[in-house]
Amino acid sequence: MKKNLALTTLILASTATAAIAGPIEEQIRFRQSAYSFAAWNLGKIKNQVVDHPETFNKDSVAAAANAIAAVANSGLGSLYGEGTDQGVGWKQSRLKPEFFQKKEEVTVAANTFNLAANDLAKVAATGDVAAIKVQFGKVGESCKGCHDLIRIKE
Amino acid sequence: MKKNLALTTLILASTATAAIAGPIEEQIRFRQSAYSFAAWNLGKIKNQVVDHPETFNKDSVAAAANAIAAVANSGLGSLYGEGTDQGVGWKQSRLKPEFFQKKEEVTVAANTFNLAANDLAKVAATGDVAAIKVQFGKVGESCKGCHDLIRIKE
Repeated sequence: MKKNLALTTLILASTATAAIAGPIEEQIRFRQSAYSFAAWNLGKIKNQVVDHPETFNKDSVAAAANAIAAVANSGLGSLYGEGTDQGVGWKQSRLKPEFFQKKEEVTVAANTFNLAANDLAKVAATGDVAAIKVQFGKVGESCKGCHDLIRIKE
Repeated sequence: MKKNLALTTLILASTATAAIAGPIEEQIRFRQSAYSFAAWNLGKIKNQVVDHPETFNKDSVAAAANAIAAVANSGLGSLYGEGTDQGVGWKQSRLKPEFFQKKEEVTVAANTFNLAANDLAKVAATGDVAAIKVQFGKVGESCKGCHDLIRIKE
């Protein structure tokens, strides 16, 4: 609990001081890449833990969980500069313009994802399939938390 | 050395048995995402270690190095299925058709990247800027090794 609090404080601090990275189109492209990379790894875990548990491979799932945690820890906040609700990265940005008025809610949602993803990496390292499944569900919920808040539905 | 050898064996094994992930367009899109995510993180390290060392932040560089290692450890081999030298992910694939005749050379190049990236994560955790710079150079060389071998020049 104490550790989580320290981590949250760290994230809040890094969100507040994050330097914005590069031109608008580049920020959008990098964040689309980061989330797609996370999605691929989430898919691998879903496949091995939920859909086809007979294919479960501890090392593969642990590597996928580490990848998701690395995305969560990579300072994505620096890719949400002003104007990045408009513009094309790999494709048109789906960021809602309200993002910029909802910074506090976004920080809470982002921290929830960060903590859930780091916990998934820890749980995945144990190889306990049932526990991984539970924590994977929490990561999924935390993804949805942000999507509902700031992503335009397709 | 022994550890590196064991890791190499592991990678060789996982390359050989990696199940191919999804349709051609999806494989290309995921690998373009993975490398773009790595490129963003390589850029952060270059910025803080080579170009503007006065901005060096240990936590930021360590997180970026972990992200690059997570990409290297994510089983990218499963995104190089037959036919993925042709097709569009986020954009047209730049994979040379020779890839499929150069599997052994590719494995060596991929392992070089994998080891260099994992070593960078270890060195970054120490916060030793000079050592990070040296290891960052080695990762860059390992990227180039693969690019020269199997990526079409733009």
